[in-house]
Amino acid sequence: MLEIAVIGAGRIGQIHARNIAAHQGAVLVGIADPDADAAARLAQACGSKVIALDDAFRAQAVLIGSPTPTHADFIERAAQAGQAIFCEKPVDLSLARVDACIATVQRAGVALMVGFNRRFDPHFAELKRRLDAGAVGNLEMLTIISRDPSPPPASYVAVSGGLFRDMMIHDLDMARFLLGEEPVAIHAAASCLVNPEIGAAGDVDTAMVTLRTASGRLCQISNSRRATYGYDQRIEVHGAAGMLRAGNVPTSTVEVATAAGMTGDPVLPFFLERYAAAYRAELDYFITEVAAGRHPAPSGADGRAALRLADAATESARSGQVVAL
Amino acid sequence: MLEIAVIGAGRIGQIHARNIAAHQGAVLVGIADPDADAAARLAQACGSKVIALDDAFRAQAVLIGSPTPTHADFIERAAQAGQAIFCEKPVDLSLARVDACIATVQRAGVALMVGFNRRFDPHFAELKRRLDAGAVGNLEMLTIISRDPSPPPASYVAVSGGLFRDMMIHDLDMARFLLGEEPVAIHAAASCLVNPEIGAAGDVDTAMVTLRTASGRLCQISNSRRATYGYDQRIEVHGAAGMLRAGNVPTSTVEVATAAGMTGDPVLPFFLERYAAAYRAELDYFITEVAAGRHPAPSGADGRAALRLADAATESARSGQVVAL
Amino acid sequence: MLEIAVIGAGRIGQIHARNIAAHQGAVLVGIADPDADAAARLAQACGSKVIALDDAFRAQAVLIGSPTPTHADFIERAAQAGQAIFCEKPVDLSLARVDACIATVQRAGVALMVGFNRRFDPHFAELKRRLDAGAVGNLEMLTIISRDPSPPPASYVAVSGGLFRDMMIHDLDMARFLLGEEPVAIHAAASCLVNPEIGAAGDVDTAMVTLRTASGRLCQISNSRRATYGYDQRIEVHGAAGMLRAGNVPTSTVEVATAAGMTGDPVLPFFLERYAAAYRAELDYFITEVAAGRHPAPSGADGRAALRLADAATESARSGQVVAL
Amino acid sequence: MLEIAVIGAGRIGQIHARNIAAHQGAVLVGIADPDADAAARLAQACGSKVIALDDAFRAQAVLIGSPTPTHADFIERAAQAGQAIFCEKPVDLSLARVDACIATVQRAGVALMVGFNRRFDPHFAELKRRLDAGAVGNLEMLTIISRDPSPPPASYVAVSGGLFRDMMIHDLDMARFLLGEEPVAIHAAASCLVNPEIGAAGDVDTAMVTLRTASGRLCQISNSRRATYGYDQRIEVHGAAGMLRAGNVPTSTVEVATAAGMTGDPVLPFFLERYAAAYRAELDYFITEVAAGRHPAPSGADGRAALRLADAATESARSGQVVAL
Repeated sequence: MLEIAVIGAGRIGQIHARNIAAHQGAVLVGIADPDADAAARLAQACGSKVIALDDAFRAQAVLIGSPTPTHADFIERAAQAGQAIFCEKPVDLSLARVDACIATVQRAGVALMVGFNRRFDPHFAELKRRLDAGAVGNLEMLTIISRDPSPPPASYVAVSGGLFRDMMIHDLDMARFLLGEEPVAIHAAASCLVNPEIGAAGDVDTAMVTLRTASGRLCQISNSRRATYGYDQRIEVHGAAGMLRAGNVPTSTVEVATAAGMTGDPVLPFFLERYAAAYRAELDYFITEVAAGRHPAPSGADGRAALRLADAATESARSGQVVAL
Repeated sequence: MLEIAVIGAGRIGQIHARNIAAHQGAVLVGIADPDADAAARLAQACGSKVIALDDAFRAQAVLIGSPTPTHADFIERAAQAGQAIFCEKPVDLSLARVDACIATVQRAGVALMVGFNRRFDPHFAELKRRLDAGAVGNLEMLTIISRDPSPPPASYVAVSGGLFRDMMIHDLDMARFLLGEEPVAIHAAASCLVNPEIGAAGDVDTAMVTLRTASGRLCQISNSRRATYGYDQRIEVHGAAGMLRAGNVPTSTVEVATAAGMTGDPVLPFFLERYAAAYRAELDYFITEVAAGRHPAPSGADGRAALRLADAATESARSGQVVAL
Repeated sequence: MLEIAVIGAGRIGQIHARNIAAHQGAVLVGIADPDADAAARLAQACGSKVIALDDAFRAQAVLIGSPTPTHADFIERAAQAGQAIFCEKPVDLSLARVDACIATVQRAGVALMVGFNRRFDPHFAELKRRLDAGAVGNLEMLTIISRDPSPPPASYVAVSGGLFRDMMIHDLDMARFLLGEEPVAIHAAASCLVNPEIGAAGDVDTAMVTLRTASGRLCQISNSRRATYGYDQRIEVHGAAGMLRAGNVPTSTVEVATAAGMTGDPVLPFFLERYAAAYRAELDYFITEVAAGRHPAPSGADGRAALRLADAATESARSGQVVAL
Repeated sequence: MLEIAVIGAGRIGQIHARNIAAHQGAVLVGIADPDADAAARLAQACGSKVIALDDAFRAQAVLIGSPTPTHADFIERAAQAGQAIFCEKPVDLSLARVDACIATVQRAGVALMVGFNRRFDPHFAELKRRLDAGAVGNLEMLTIISRDPSPPPASYVAVSGGLFRDMMIHDLDMARFLLGEEPVAIHAAASCLVNPEIGAAGDVDTAMVTLRTASGRLCQISNSRRATYGYDQRIEVHGAAGMLRAGNVPTSTVEVATAAGMTGDPVLPFFLERYAAAYRAELDYFITEVAAGRHPAPSGADGRAALRLADAATESARSGQVVAL
């Protein structure tokens, strides 16, 4: 039984804490959060207890679900304490800080897994399995469509690091996961079409990115902060021998036919619903790997690589030019 | 070039006349109809001419698209004239009259093909090819769903022979076509739910039929005179090795996603649109077979067999009991 | 917190015990089963304990998941003990025994819910909500397709009560649930096409049933003990204003396109996967209703009504005649 | 009746000649082609006659379906002859030559329509109608996926002008058609992954392009010279109020379900099948507009605009940089 402490009782901390509490191979030793009420509510819901931050670094493993600016510090404390670490993305918004953090982790020799949950989505994981099994031959083109149902508040946008680091970073990780090669060039085009306040905060809400790898594989990513029909999460791989895709998951299979046509249910509304199974699978994998003494992936290096792509995309969208990697 | 005369310038005659005129292997020698204006309009549209009824029986082949009560007489005249005959379903509403008519045709040794157009629908024909090729192994269960977009006028209902002989006869033919065995028992349940005038005319507008063959294959047919979403025409075969189905054809592939869900186009509105290709294929097959000196199917015997099932279904719906065949 | 004891540590008992253990509003007080090892394994997996059968009747509520022949006795013991009762279907294979059992429950004034889990499937429940909300107007025709992936062992068939009482009873309950009226006539056609051993045991493996209600609503049910493509569970409602259907749930949304066509994943393999959410929702509803002092449905009377239809279908398939209800 | 002469008896000339022959509002006055046999075969098939090239410029209208290098010359001859002109894309591979050609047409005041057939595809046309009707509000992002089933021979590639001018030009026209604004920047990434001979000929076979308009609308185009599953032609519009898409058309609606999953038919194999209806609608529109004395679109200016985008894409793919427009 892996003893795990959770830092952060917010939206993502709640998901992980509940999953740890329900897991047969783990014990939720406690929840630390400066908001004592939030920590208490979550502890009660999970049959666990509130703990001090210092105590979180005394468990075998720690799950860091606190705000982004705290991630790197907490990772370093955990590494020095010899803990296995699961940290939500991103490690940090500064590549230099990420590098320092990873160095600390490496010196400590501990496991660091970064929360790119989509790799564990059953649909995308099945697509990856088929791709690896050769279902469509050599990958030639990859298309990732990823749209949030509605934009975050401007206050969030201001501290988010921008669309590329906050939102598209998931797609950039997915691109690396599926392309099987590192991109060598990136181009981003972006606009503010959804909410002028996002533009006023210096960010964009609509973006298209193109990646190119050394062998010539191409990848397109399409992001919007708005989708009236739900959380739009699709992947399509075009290969020498065929095409492979994973689509959205509707709320139910119910369809109604009238003179207006045949209408299926909207897709699952947002990440809590769409990725519920992914969060469980991600945690299960982390626990299994740590219990077996292995270092799970996506690692700190994967987190760094995705951030580097997000930085380059930000630069490309700003300059209007292609960025070599 | 097969010379074909068309009798009947109504809805179905127009379809066939245009198809004959456009066919590379046939010549439309003329159109006969008591309604001289209708005949003239159709002749002009097809680049053909109006002919007298007697002249229709002087061509190499005749296509009978006149009202049902005239079919048997015209078939017999054509048979005696040694013509190849294409007649719209049904041969007649009386089984005895059909028997006499078929006997005349057999004595004359001419070809008689009955217009069960659905056998030639590209989707259903493809399903049949796959079934025959063993795609799902031995057929165990067959489900046919067939719904008209809206009920015919009560005046039509009164002379139609009733839902089973007028509408379901197509599905009963399709059942025979696919089951590969003759039914040995039939059960029908029927109601008047769509339009009380249909009930007042002694007919039904909603019906479900079950067929059983000697080897135990089962078939369900579902009919309604109403479908708000278009002309509903579906077939599903359940076999030992899998399931095979042919669905509706939407007006276009356009889909729109909004908060209400994902909406595809309605299905094609009625038989003119859904079976346009079927009518062409049916005619092409007739011309090819006749030109080759073969007798095309569905034959008069097939028309008789479907009518016999329709009669039995009518009797079962009336008595509430199973009818042995 | 509702204290619930579970009787039966088999396949269905395991589902319910785990769901009770995970439910926030219930406590799993223990598991009783003559097979002490099975009980112990399940108790350990759920963090509960093994109890004697007598002790199962001392909790506030009991969940009966033992073999069918024990259901009625256990229901009566529980009723006499004043417990809220959840019993897997069927109450008994004998209608007379069911009647006696229901009388005992009514005298005791306790809640008895019968495990027709499909009513709680999120897809079918959504279809029911839409139907009740008038999405397709007055229901005219109902089509239920329900096929198991593979037949049960002949030993099970021998004691199952036959396909209609063992398998189709779920569909008959669903028909009652959706039709909104009691059937007045039933016709069944059935065959043994899947496994001759089933026929040798006096049962069938392939069946089609037609129901008719007093107002003329019609319903078709299609059952097979075999479906190579997974657990086939579909419902379609045809109404005056449109058509409403709930389809199968694929294993994932992954599709692969090759020269062979576009292939989607098989549907979920069997009831454990397809109805996992239904079992949770069913239990949650039972707990909520009992906690609120209400009597949940489907009740003992619903269980009796479905059994009566199954008996009539069995008789119809045997006699080849329609059975009035 | 519009008298139309056809120049070119190759693949595309055959399509148009047959459509003219079958059109009620046009007369096919003859077919001119240096290959006298090809011209004769086509003339016979259409019930028309072979004519000399000079005679082609004596009809009311001319349809130019000859090889690309002849287009501009023929357009100018036709313009000087006062004919209405339908010319297959592209007008020429040189922008300067196109400009000169358009100037000649404008001086002559004749109608010039360029054959961007996809605008007339029923599915894409329906998407455009819905977009214009506001079905998804303001267009924010456009995704065009367009893949040929298999690469052309290297000999064709050598004279084709390259993927962007030969193949993607259709998608660039579609982008202009749907975006409702001219692009102000273009980025192209391209590779040779399908056939090394294409690379040896200096061309690419795999490409992704991004367009940006002045108001910030974004568009992605994905092209491959290979798709094992058929001719892949899809469009997706993401707007403020929803998403609109038009998908591929399968060969039939037949699906087969087995343990391998649910398999639908491959999509239509290539442009002859997929765009048969588009070619008919395109011609019908040309005839109708010319008969009404209007100048049809897409015009020569549209042909020029698409070519300019194709040139810019070619340059961007070569330089690896964004090209401002």
